[in-house]
Amino acid sequence: MESTDKRTAASTPASESALLHPAAAASAKYSALDFVLRVLLLAASVSAVVVMATSKQTEMVPVPGLPPNIRVPFSAEFNDSPAFIYFMAALSLTGLYSIITTLASISVFRKAKSILLLFALFDVVFVGIVASATGAAGGVAYIGLRGNDHVRWNKICNVYDKFCRHIGSSVALSLFAGVLLVFLSMISTFTLYKRIR
Amino acid sequence: MESTDKRTAASTPASESALLHPAAAASAKYSALDFVLRVLLLAASVSAVVVMATSKQTEMVPVPGLPPNIRVPFSAEFNDSPAFIYFMAALSLTGLYSIITTLASISVFRKAKSILLLFALFDVVFVGIVASATGAAGGVAYIGLRGNDHVRWNKICNVYDKFCRHIGSSVALSLFAGVLLVFLSMISTFTLYKRIR
Repeated sequence: MESTDKRTAASTPASESALLHPAAAASAKYSALDFVLRVLLLAASVSAVVVMATSKQTEMVPVPGLPPNIRVPFSAEFNDSPAFIYFMAALSLTGLYSIITTLASISVFRKAKSILLLFALFDVVFVGIVASATGAAGGVAYIGLRGNDHVRWNKICNVYDKFCRHIGSSVALSLFAGVLLVFLSMISTFTLYKRIR
Repeated sequence: MESTDKRTAASTPASESALLHPAAAASAKYSALDFVLRVLLLAASVSAVVVMATSKQTEMVPVPGLPPNIRVPFSAEFNDSPAFIYFMAALSLTGLYSIITTLASISVFRKAKSILLLFALFDVVFVGIVASATGAAGGVAYIGLRGNDHVRWNKICNVYDKFCRHIGSSVALSLFAGVLLVFLSMISTFTLYKRIR
């Protein structure tokens, strides 16, 4: 009875509320799943940012032009590469977005229709942002791991092992965040679909 | 009158068909836009694949270990880099997907509801695929353009100018394809939303 009241408050014509009852139950189930996935998304994106931010590693490396027994400390950190800087910006933004949408997800029962639409629209944009950041960081990290003989780009992961472990974990976390966003977007769309059945 | 018949055939209860009339008009407008964007998506993804496939360039370059006046022909082509191979696979798949969905888009009036849902669900997946491919190829291409002094990866675009122009154009086309897919996904979602107003 309470749920019927809420539906009526959300400007649904009273004559439709009886028809929508099974849909409302399905909607509640999807909304709980939506909330859980958004909390996971927050965890994944914040972890990805933290793991990449703490990737700095300093090693003694030989310098070309000097004798090979003379080694100089050189650092590898994420802001050596524009791809990793973009990655940090994208994943931080996703973390912020996931906080906002988690809070909005709690209030989804109150004015569900418009929030579901906003979720479905913005989730797609963030799928694009997270996927492109994952691709860019992954593409550069792969060169770091394997190098590229054709253009004589040497691999660096044999020297900067900790750095590469952090970058790899961070890319894996953002891949997970991207998959979560795809599912979240699908859930929002599917809930909208359920309403018109 | 004809559109009302089609709606009734698509298992919509007869009592709702009158209510859905303005929504049906809006749906027809969005469907036309959907079709045009899908044709554009096909053009963009096929162009991106063709432009990258034709990027091969052979130049005479000095080889380390030999005297600098001795130059050897070296080719740059997209399958030197795993990121570009992934890009080709992803954009080819998107081209195939856009052919299928363009054909399905023409028949959208017949059984609109389920096709709209499929479009909305799969478009999101392809947003992820195209965005990650664009990110990966863009990230590697940027190293080719500017190099990275921190890890001594030399830029190659000063030598392989035609190759880099092709790669750059191809990445720009796939970025365009990604934006198209975001809009397509939003249109599908928004059309679903219009149905429940």
